[in-house]
Order: sequence, then structure tokens, then C-alpha cells
Amino acid sequence: MNLLVYLAGEIHSNWREEIQEKAKALQLDIQFVSPMTDHHRSDHIGEEILGKQPNAITKDEAASQINNLRTTILMKKADLVIALFGEKYKQWNTAMDASTAIALQKPLILIRPESLHHPLKELSNKADVTVETVNQAIKILSYIYE
Amino acid sequence: MNLLVYLAGEIHSNWREEIQEKAKALQLDIQFVSPMTDHHRSDHIGEEILGKQPNAITKDEAASQINNLRTTILMKKADLVIALFGEKYKQWNTAMDASTAIALQKPLILIRPESLHHPLKELSNKADVTVETVNQAIKILSYIYE
Amino acid sequence: MNLLVYLAGEIHSNWREEIQEKAKALQLDIQFVSPMTDHHRSDHIGEEILGKQPNAITKDEAASQINNLRTTILMKKADLVIALFGEKYKQWNTAMDASTAIALQKPLILIRPESLHHPLKELSNKADVTVETVNQAIKILSYIYE
Amino acid sequence: MNLLVYLAGEIHSNWREEIQEKAKALQLDIQFVSPMTDHHRSDHIGEEILGKQPNAITKDEAASQINNLRTTILMKKADLVIALFGEKYKQWNTAMDASTAIALQKPLILIRPESLHHPLKELSNKADVTVETVNQAIKILSYIYE
Amino acid sequence: MNLLVYLAGEIHSNWREEIQEKAKALQLDIQFVSPMTDHHRSDHIGEEILGKQPNAITKDEAASQINNLRTTILMKKADLVIALFGEKYKQWNTAMDASTAIALQKPLILIRPESLHHPLKELSNKADVTVETVNQAIKILSYIYE
Amino acid sequence: MNLLVYLAGEIHSNWREEIQEKAKALQLDIQFVSPMTDHHRSDHIGEEILGKQPNAITKDEAASQINNLRTTILMKKADLVIALFGEKYKQWNTAMDASTAIALQKPLILIRPESLHHPLKELSNKADVTVETVNQAIKILSYIYE
Amino acid sequence: MNLLVYLAGEIHSNWREEIQEKAKALQLDIQFVSPMTDHHRSDHIGEEILGKQPNAITKDEAASQINNLRTTILMKKADLVIALFGEKYKQWNTAMDASTAIALQKPLILIRPESLHHPLKELSNKADVTVETVNQAIKILSYIYE
Amino acid sequence: MNLLVYLAGEIHSNWREEIQEKAKALQLDIQFVSPMTDHHRSDHIGEEILGKQPNAITKDEAASQINNLRTTILMKKADLVIALFGEKYKQWNTAMDASTAIALQKPLILIRPESLHHPLKELSNKADVTVETVNQAIKILSYIYE
Repeated sequence: MNLLVYLAGEIHSNWREEIQEKAKALQLDIQFVSPMTDHHRSDHIGEEILGKQPNAITKDEAASQINNLRTTILMKKADLVIALFGEKYKQWNTAMDASTAIALQKPLILIRPESLHHPLKELSNKADVTVETVNQAIKILSYIYE
Repeated sequence: MNLLVYLAGEIHSNWREEIQEKAKALQLDIQFVSPMTDHHRSDHIGEEILGKQPNAITKDEAASQINNLRTTILMKKADLVIALFGEKYKQWNTAMDASTAIALQKPLILIRPESLHHPLKELSNKADVTVETVNQAIKILSYIYE
Repeated sequence: MNLLVYLAGEIHSNWREEIQEKAKALQLDIQFVSPMTDHHRSDHIGEEILGKQPNAITKDEAASQINNLRTTILMKKADLVIALFGEKYKQWNTAMDASTAIALQKPLILIRPESLHHPLKELSNKADVTVETVNQAIKILSYIYE
Repeated sequence: MNLLVYLAGEIHSNWREEIQEKAKALQLDIQFVSPMTDHHRSDHIGEEILGKQPNAITKDEAASQINNLRTTILMKKADLVIALFGEKYKQWNTAMDASTAIALQKPLILIRPESLHHPLKELSNKADVTVETVNQAIKILSYIYE
Repeated sequence: MNLLVYLAGEIHSNWREEIQEKAKALQLDIQFVSPMTDHHRSDHIGEEILGKQPNAITKDEAASQINNLRTTILMKKADLVIALFGEKYKQWNTAMDASTAIALQKPLILIRPESLHHPLKELSNKADVTVETVNQAIKILSYIYE
Repeated sequence: MNLLVYLAGEIHSNWREEIQEKAKALQLDIQFVSPMTDHHRSDHIGEEILGKQPNAITKDEAASQINNLRTTILMKKADLVIALFGEKYKQWNTAMDASTAIALQKPLILIRPESLHHPLKELSNKADVTVETVNQAIKILSYIYE
Repeated sequence: MNLLVYLAGEIHSNWREEIQEKAKALQLDIQFVSPMTDHHRSDHIGEEILGKQPNAITKDEAASQINNLRTTILMKKADLVIALFGEKYKQWNTAMDASTAIALQKPLILIRPESLHHPLKELSNKADVTVETVNQAIKILSYIYE
Repeated sequence: MNLLVYLAGEIHSNWREEIQEKAKALQLDIQFVSPMTDHHRSDHIGEEILGKQPNAITKDEAASQINNLRTTILMKKADLVIALFGEKYKQWNTAMDASTAIALQKPLILIRPESLHHPLKELSNKADVTVETVNQAIKILSYIYE
């Protein structure tokens, strides 16, 4: 049984590579997709494709519509979403992707440091499972295939 | 035509009262609902109803399940969602409510200060309309009834 | 039994008033809603609420997001959609509203002059009923209540 | 990851071939489908299959039901819809296909010349992305696969 | 609690009046709707509204699109469907209404004479309840309100 | 704001009366519905309406189809489901009603004695909130209206 | 592009074989499925699997639940439904399958002799296309692949 | 045609192996999935992955969220669900899985000993087919492929 897993969140660490390598080592039949993880590229894709925009807000609007199209196509195909919150930043796209998964009834694993348990308590309650480390998420993936 | 409008977000200012008073002054046939806006009460509702919990995380889990039940019932009945982001805090519940509205195909008005345009660009692109002030949101409510 | 009927299309004639008066004369328990029919107002609502925009395209974007929000709320509440095409103009909003009604499984009556039967043939085939005059649409409304 | 892309609109230029060749050159794993692009054939398919019809309207009705059946099957399978409006014609089938995609929550890229920005403003606002050239659409397809 | 009940089927006996009178006598808070039960009127409504048609088939097409529009609006509002098959006729509209109710997940009571148990066995198995008399259906309506 | 609450489960105690009285005392605008709580009547409703059945299994089949019709109509109208498990019996109808509520995305409050926490752990995890007493459920109802 | 086509209706002629052979000759990438077409087997499958039943009605109930399970699984997987009505019999299962396809938004081709146009007028109006011969249906299948 | 069948229920006998072997012997193109059938492992998976929990209830909560995630992913992919009730235990997970299948409109075969016909009567009435032995379920699987 093949699963498509969408990896939302944190783009400043290599957690996606870690999950993919471990899933491969465990021979789990999983394909992974992600939002654009190159921050600079995701910020400039609008002007790159649509040309120079009149101001910073319309530049953002141009970029975001292309990023959202990409994300929507990928998430609609996913069987499972894993969203990782880090210690820093507002991470509203992570919250948006996680909440979209919940509302679309896509199973969701939330990874967040214990320190964030209070501000994420409502989102965590809506997630199917909340864990603290990438390793714990890997163990769950493995358990699905037992 | 009666509308039920769910007011998500910011609980440290009186913007909900402002919207309700102005809607009343304009004689718009609108009923407003909200998440629990008493921060202390929303944090302690779990232990208040379910009793003392073993630690801070399970206390949060207890509170959040009751807050989410309340929110879900109200949002399912809403015709329109208005979500206001302020300058401070991570506001992940606001992002969660806004994203849930989008995924449930509930029309969404996003209110955010211009300063937040960059971190909120993807969410803003998914919202039906993004404005910067409560007054602008009121004008849209009024336009619906013209 | 009360019905809410959304009247899409043509804004340069008084067909909406005609339908409403005749429905009233026939004592049909129907409430009617419409997209913004004041052309000038619908074109300028964006700048009126969101302020001066940098160019004509962003001015249009500002107006259209507010018009679409208004339309979405009204169409979601409708039990029936009536869309009238006139002889002139591209009328893409009429085509959009009619197609949206079909995809949302809202019953649809299409009113179009016989002269347009060829370019509207696919849309006409998807509509529940196609007629040529407002009077014929009124007779159908009356038949629903027999 | 394989995608099925439905190409709606304009049948008097070779933009579909252009997209397909460039997608192939970029080695994107995409399969393309379209409405019937042979205008004469799409107009006469009704009488060809169902036999001579009594008049021009019923001839159109015969053709359109077969064209719509074909289109419905293809669009239901699509992961993404690209709709191209040209400078000429009423193009109501393009508007219908684009609006159907939106209502079915299929991601939609709209291609239209800048000159049409005003009459298409509401449809453009509902599309996920609006561009002006086929090349820009290709770049978006490529970005999805990065 | 108010219920809207759609009464499909048999138009050559007065079973609808019987149900309505008994429901009234039992003071059940039920509103009843039906397809057009005047056979002659339902056959001629197409030409009455759309004018003389070229042949018998297009006359039927004209009538049926108006009858279907009427039926669709009513059934979408119904909380419960009761479909009565009589001994005679093919009654394909009854089968169509009953099957539509099932596919739309509207609860369905089937009334049919015992003699029809074999040809209706699959439809009966899909119905929520199958009874043989109008009186039995009334008893079920009454039981819902206990 | 009026809510319709479906009270599933336990029919050998007066917990439904308790909830209704307390909700009334608190002036909560709630209407309550339930499955048939007269055990003898729910077991015999099949033969009462459909007549003597050939054996115990077909007698049960006759009763259950009428009970299920009744339950389906009521649950589809509910805004919230409360399911109470007692210490005794297999209570498979309670499990069925609770699971149906979850799958239909109806918010669910589960009431169960602490002693049942282990066999009900998966159902409890899927419920929105799990409590141990009727009083706790009342407090949640009250919190929704704050 | 592979399609799964469900062939409903008429079991006393070899029209299914005809369609399958012609589709093969035309090299259309189509897989066909059907309800049980062995009449005797479909009538007795209940007792064959569940054992002797107390009477004719319960024997029918036993058979129909297994036939319906089989049909439901197959129709849910279908991309297109073709339903053929013959001159004889009540054919309520054909009407049920065709109506189910419509309500599930599965594209539907109806094949019926011209002589049945009047009693099938409402069902025909709801079908995507109505034809009179198997050959016409084949031509439509071929047109989908052009 | 490949089917994915989810086998819910009873974990203390080898009925899953029996079904899989017989399906293989009959060369049915079926893939089977199940909830975790190792009772000890399913009870401890929470602490194994999430670490030591403060008490028995939170230990159960930890395990159940992971078991539910696993089950949800598998059931969403299934074409058919088979649920087996044994003579012993409360088997609320079996009731939950069976009811979820019904509410998600997944076809359901219920296997239960005749002795349980009374307490399972409502669930049995909602199932597509109820049988008493694994062999009968196998015969139905085989009939689907005829």
C-alpha cells in the first residue's frame, strides 16, 4: 500500500530529509511532497512569473497565489499530513496547512516542541496525534505499515 | 435576510463590540457569535468541568477539547467568518479558525494591519477579502445588504 | 413553503422588478436576491472600501473580491437561480453565476433570446430549464407552488 | 507524481500543442485532456450520432448533450484546469468550464490578455492564478514539480 | 419539530389526501409536498410554457424539464420521502424519485402491495422501511413524534 | 441561538430528564430528541406496524428498520450529540449512534463512568469531549451559550 | 486514459457483449462491469449463501441485499453508467441504477426504444444523453477518446 | 478489478488468515488491511512512542490516538468493510468501525453469531449484508467478481 504524505511547516532545518531517509531505511512505501521550502524562491515566484508588481503587497499577492495553487494540488492528493512547528517565527502557513488538513478530513500528525504546548493547545487537540520529535512521527509511519 | 457571523481572533481589544454596535446602528439583520473571549476562562474551563488534571499539558488538553467543541458548533452555523489579526502574539487559533472557514467554504473576511502583509500573504490570498480596519469590514457587511 | 431565488445576469433592463412584481401579484412566497446591479457602484466598491489602488487591474481585483464575497453568501442561501442573458455584452459574470449554480446543484432556469441559442447551447443543456422570456420564468415559479 | 490537466477555452490557436510540447521538453509527468477542439465536429456530433433533428435548436441540444458528457467525464478526472480566453468571441463555454472547475474545487489557472481584465475581473478573482501568456502557465506547471 | 415530507408515486388514488388528513388528526407537525399529480397538466406543462414543440419527443422533453425542476426543489427541502407503488403501470418516476431519495441519503418509506415484492426487491432492500398500506406509513410518522 | 441536541444511550436511568430540567433551569435555548427509550416498545414496534413476523430474527429486522428510520431523521437535524454509556450491557446502539455522529461530523460529548475508560478509549479519543457525569455535560452546554 | 463503465439494465439480450466487442475493436481503453446478469442466480443467491429462508419475501430480501452490495461496490468505482431499457418488463432495477447514477453525479447514457419515450421522459431529461441503439452509445464512447 | 477490504473486529481468532487464504485460493484480486490485531501492542503503542504517561487514562488516550490515526488512513482507502463480532467482550471498536463504514457509505458485511441477533439488530439493519460465518462472507466476495 502506497501513501502520499505532505510535510508542512518549518523550512529552516533538514527535518524533511531526515524523515525521507528514515522512511527509506525502513522500506516504507511512502512518497513525500512539501510546500516550496526555498524561502527566497517562494517569496519571489510571483514577480518571476507575473513580472514586476507595483508594490510590496501586490508582490506578495502574486507570490502567494502561485504558492497556494501548488500547495492545494499537493495536499488534495495526500493521504496524511505531518506539520512541524519550530520554536521561532509566527509560522502561519504551518497553522494554515494543518487546519486545512483537519477540515478536509486528512489525517494529521503535529510535531511541536513541548514549550509550545500552550499556544498550540486547540490545534493540537484537533490533530489526530501530537508528538515532539521527528523520530516519534517516523515510528507512527512505521506502525501504520505493521 | 438574517446572517450569522462568527468573529474570530484578537481578544485583547473591543473590536467585537465595535462591529456589533455599528451593525446595529446600520440596522443590519446580523447575529454575531465568537470563540470564548475571556482568556482566563478559556484556559481554565477544562479543569473547571473535568477536575484537576495531572500536569500542564493535560490541563491544556482538557480546556482545548471544550473550547473546540464550542467553536465547532458555532462556526458550522455561521454564514460568514471575520478573522482579525493584531500586531502581537502568535494567534494560532485565529489562523486555525480562518483556515477552517476557508476549507469549509465559509466566506471569510480577514482584518490585519498592513505591517503583517508578508507573513499572512498565503492566508490573505485564500481569504475572500482582506482589509485593514474594522470599519472596512463593516462597510462590506453593509454592502451585502444593499 | 418559502423559496429564496437568486436573479443573475443582465443589469441594463428592469427584468428583476418585473419578476418581483408578478411574483407578488401571484402571491408566491418568494424572496429575491441579486448581485450588485448598480454597475458604477460594483466597479468602484473596491476603492471605496479599500482605498485608492495602484492601477486599473488592482482596482478591479479590489472590487471583484468584494462583489464575489457578496454573491457567494447570497447564492449559498438560494433554493433556485434564474440567469438572464441579453443580446449584448460578454456577460461573463452571468455565465459564471449560472455555471456555479449548476456545479453546486442549485436548480437553474436560463432565460436567453432565441438568437443566442447556438453560443449558449452547452450551458443551456446543463440548465434545468431554458426559456426565452421573463414571463415564461414566472409561469415556472407559479407551477412550483401548485 | 502524475497530474491530469484539462485545457479549456480558445480553439482557434495552437496553444494546447504549445503547452504539451513545452511540458514534454521539461519532462513534466503531465497528461493533458481537452474539450472537443474541432469546431465543426463539435457542432455536428449530435446529428451524426442521433440523426437529423427537427430544427436548429434541437440540433444544438443534441450536440451539446454529447459534448457535455465528454467534458464532464474528463473534468472530473482532472487535477488542474487551465482556461484560456482570447480577444474574440463570447467564449461562454470557457467561462462555463472555468466556473465549473472553481465550484468543484479544482485548482484553476486563467490565461487572458491584459485587455480583458475588466470584464473578467470576478472570474479572475475566483481563479487560483491569472496570467497573460501560455509561457507563464508553463512556468507554474514547472514550479509545481520543483 | 417540523418535518417536510415528499409524497412520491401513484397519482390515480387519493392516498395523499388520506395521509394528510390522518397526520392532521394526529396533530403531527408535518408539511407535505408532491410531484405534480394532475397527469394531464404534467404532460402539457412544457408546451403551455415553452410553446408548441416540433414533435412528441420534444414535447415530452419540454414537459419533463419543468417537472424535474419542480421535483428537485421540493425533494431537496424534504426530511423524509414516502413512495407508493400501485399494482398498475411502469411507474418509472416513482422508481426515480425513490432512488434519488436513497442516493441523497433522504430517509425513505416504500409502500407497495405484497404482490410486487419480487420486482421491487432490490429497491425495497435499499429503502429504510417497506410497508404495504398507507395506514402503516402513518403509524411510522406517528412513532417518529413519540 | 437555538440548538437541537440528540441524547443517545442508556435507557434505564432518568438522565435525559435530568439534562432537560437543568437546561431549562439555566434557560438554555435547547430542544432535545432521543431514540425510542421505551425498551419494550422499541422491540415490538416492527410487529405492531408490519404484523406478525415468521421468527425472532425477522421480528428484530422489522423493529430495527423502523427504529433506524426514526433515529436517522432525528440525528440529521441535530447540532450536537450526547452519548451516555452505563456500567452494564453491550450498548451497541450507543456505540453506533456515537460513531455515526463522528462520521457525520456532528460534535459529540461522551459520558462514561471512569471504569469504562479502557474499552472505550478509541471512541473517547474520537469524541470531541469525554466526561464522567451528566452534570459535566450540562456545564459544557452552558459554556456554549456564554 | 482508462475508464470503468457500468452497464445497467436489460438482461435478456446480448447487448453487453456487443458493446464490449465493439469497444475492443475500436481499441478503447475501457473496462466494463455489470449487475449480475444471470437472472436465476441473482434470484437465488440469498438462499445459496444465507440458507433456506422462511418465505418468499424473506428469500427476496436475502437475495437483494447481496445483489445491492455487489452493485454498490461496482457503481462507486464507475466513471460512466450506461442503462438500457427494453420493450418489456417493469425494469425497476434499471430505473434504480440509472437514478442512482444521476444522484451520485456519475455521467449517464440512457438507451431506450423510441416507443418508451413518454413513460421515460423525466428520467431521460435527467440523463446526460439519451439514444435509441447500442451503436449510438458506442459512437459516444469513441467520441470521448477523440 | 482490485478491491481493498478492511477487516474489522474480533482479534482472538484467526478469521483474518482464513479469509485471506480462501480469497487467494479463489484467485480474487483483493488486498486486505486491518486494525492492529496484536492486543498488547495496540494497548502500549502510546507509551512506546510518546513516552511514559501520568496515569492509566492518559496512557489510553496516547494509545488510542495512534490506533485511530492508523485505522482512519486504512478505512478511507477501503472499498468494502467486513466486521466480525464474536460471542465475548463489549467489542466497541468493532461497533465503531462498522458504524463509521456505514456513515462513510462504505459497503459493509457484518458477521455475527445468531445468538447476537437481538443486541445487534439496529446495526445489522444498517449493514448491507449480515451473515453468520466467515465462509458466507467469502462467498459474497467471490460473487462480486463473477
